[in-house]
Amino acid sequence: MFPNPSRPLVSAPAETAVLALLLAEGPLSRVELARRTGLSSTAVTKAAKPLIEDGYLYELPPERTAPGAGRPVNPLAVSPDREFFVGVKISADALYGAVCDLRAQVRTTAGRPLGDRGPEAVCALLAELVDELLDADPAYRPHTRHLGIAVSGDVDRPAGRVRYSVLPGWRDIPFAELVAAATGLTVTLENDVKALTTAEHWFGEGIGTEYFALVTIGAGIGSGLVVNNRLIAGAHGVAGELGHIGVDPNGPRCHCGSVGCVEAIASTDAVLGAIRRGSDRPDLDFAAAVEAARAGDRTARDAFARAGRAIGVGIANLVNLIGPERVVVTGEGLDTYDLLDTHILHSYAAHCFGAAQCPLILRPLPWEEWARGAAVVGIQALLP
Amino acid sequence: MFPNPSRPLVSAPAETAVLALLLAEGPLSRVELARRTGLSSTAVTKAAKPLIEDGYLYELPPERTAPGAGRPVNPLAVSPDREFFVGVKISADALYGAVCDLRAQVRTTAGRPLGDRGPEAVCALLAELVDELLDADPAYRPHTRHLGIAVSGDVDRPAGRVRYSVLPGWRDIPFAELVAAATGLTVTLENDVKALTTAEHWFGEGIGTEYFALVTIGAGIGSGLVVNNRLIAGAHGVAGELGHIGVDPNGPRCHCGSVGCVEAIASTDAVLGAIRRGSDRPDLDFAAAVEAARAGDRTARDAFARAGRAIGVGIANLVNLIGPERVVVTGEGLDTYDLLDTHILHSYAAHCFGAAQCPLILRPLPWEEWARGAAVVGIQALLP
Repeated sequence: MFPNPSRPLVSAPAETAVLALLLAEGPLSRVELARRTGLSSTAVTKAAKPLIEDGYLYELPPERTAPGAGRPVNPLAVSPDREFFVGVKISADALYGAVCDLRAQVRTTAGRPLGDRGPEAVCALLAELVDELLDADPAYRPHTRHLGIAVSGDVDRPAGRVRYSVLPGWRDIPFAELVAAATGLTVTLENDVKALTTAEHWFGEGIGTEYFALVTIGAGIGSGLVVNNRLIAGAHGVAGELGHIGVDPNGPRCHCGSVGCVEAIASTDAVLGAIRRGSDRPDLDFAAAVEAARAGDRTARDAFARAGRAIGVGIANLVNLIGPERVVVTGEGLDTYDLLDTHILHSYAAHCFGAAQCPLILRPLPWEEWARGAAVVGIQALLP
Repeated sequence: MFPNPSRPLVSAPAETAVLALLLAEGPLSRVELARRTGLSSTAVTKAAKPLIEDGYLYELPPERTAPGAGRPVNPLAVSPDREFFVGVKISADALYGAVCDLRAQVRTTAGRPLGDRGPEAVCALLAELVDELLDADPAYRPHTRHLGIAVSGDVDRPAGRVRYSVLPGWRDIPFAELVAAATGLTVTLENDVKALTTAEHWFGEGIGTEYFALVTIGAGIGSGLVVNNRLIAGAHGVAGELGHIGVDPNGPRCHCGSVGCVEAIASTDAVLGAIRRGSDRPDLDFAAAVEAARAGDRTARDAFARAGRAIGVGIANLVNLIGPERVVVTGEGLDTYDLLDTHILHSYAAHCFGAAQCPLILRPLPWEEWARGAAVVGIQALLP
């Protein structure tokens, strides 16, 4: 985090456990917190005390669980307005921003089209966007310290650097530091799919799972993986590269240099390319290709079918290795899911090994959800 | 663990951290322990005290790190003979047993050929083998409480059950309970590849890695994966199924019901089958197939090449998803590694994504290492 690896709000494991559980699941009694965290009641009370004093937690009015069930309990809850978090997703053509509260509810959104896509221009525009977002409510500025930024590509989160992105000129850019200087906020930079995975794990479909995966399909194909309750980062910062799983030795060459990658078969560009070649219509655009497939064009339908099968095998391979409890499938590729679905599902089921097969959950996530993912990375920075 | 989920030797996180580090890395000073665990010196001293009193740790004679470097330090070390652990690997045709000390050094080995392979007969033979092992040294019996058992197949470790194994009649067998009753020891049952992975992670090539993988090749193809310092178990007990990664939509049908799995292309049987079909010699045995390949027979060489490529893509897929720091490749398939190596390495390098590529380390592990893996599962049971 920048400017400094600031001290997390909580440092004791017990405080972390209590706050994390309340953030994810909402109000719980101390008894329930003790049961769920494995801590003693005394330890829960001790852990909650400083968080109550700082205004992060508060006690709900007493409730009796049942007549004669003993003394009333005051469930603990997170004070959503105690702190706000700004999240910004940088896409190829726009910035999408959101202010979220401590429970990751989106409170305000705003965006900016990207003109100059170089790091400094994007930084300046991003600072403007943050200003606009924080101006939207007088409560925001005094209670906002953290900004999370999500960008596709190879991100070194601890160092706050974009090592590589498809945006022009983005190679080894200390972007967190630049934005921290421009905004005065503490900045955490994360890969966009990882940020979204964390948001879904803490506050979405992944709540309560120890093993969880989020898969994005569309222009790129990627995944975020949670194992033993933690996001997989990889020893060298590379993990979850579902798009570059090899699934066909006779498949097309991939932009990564390899052959038969899921992305080389199933990305938007790969599907469009296959349809253009197959139909001898080199000028076809994606919308027209989709239309042709929906109208029953054989070449177009086959290209989507092949893409669906590659995605299905890729997800099955991920499931066979990691064993998630649930897989969320999202991304702009869901817009053409009607052309992919039977192929994905059939191929996924055929390639899953035994008891590993788990539900695939479709979850269209609009752009504001990606901005929310970035904000959640800021919330996460409260915890060690 | 059976008979009871017995209380681990240590329960405080600090004690666990200190003991685990000393087990894996050998003698360290309290200062070094504090630095490596992130604990305070006081916390290290406090954590070590009960372990010293129980005889698990002892202080080495004082050493001065440098002239004038202050008061002498007494490094802490694990007492290897404080406790012994029996490990037994059940293979299709034999039991392999070992007694290991607390530092996972193999002290005694013994084995038994398997006749009747039903669970009860195996249990009786295993109890005999354990008796023989424990009789080998009078020091063993008074200091042995834990028995680890490693078996291939689908193992529910917490429940102590073999859910499925290729051994006849092994379906949902409460094997840990049976063996605990027969031996009087506390029994932990684990999948054999997972046990070996834990042994290599704690005491072998994986020491000090947060992300680590072990791949076995041969009659079966599998893997054990370590992420954030913990073995991946999978939400449903299935994970690391490298053999059932789909890598070729036009590949052969697999015994799991799917198509183009790594195991369907690259297991010993798959390679032999391909050579038999290709050479029209249905009676060829594996040794003759290997000989033919080494003598330059095209069909035989091609079958090994295809197997090598499938293994290489499979490992690359694993690496792209998990991002290990190191991958150990082992298993009886290493006996034919000269026929596989260039194909594995080329295919692996071609399919690795960017910075994810990590070293592959060949490590022939004789059967006693599998028994040691089982014993390490027992050592692991000391820690929460």
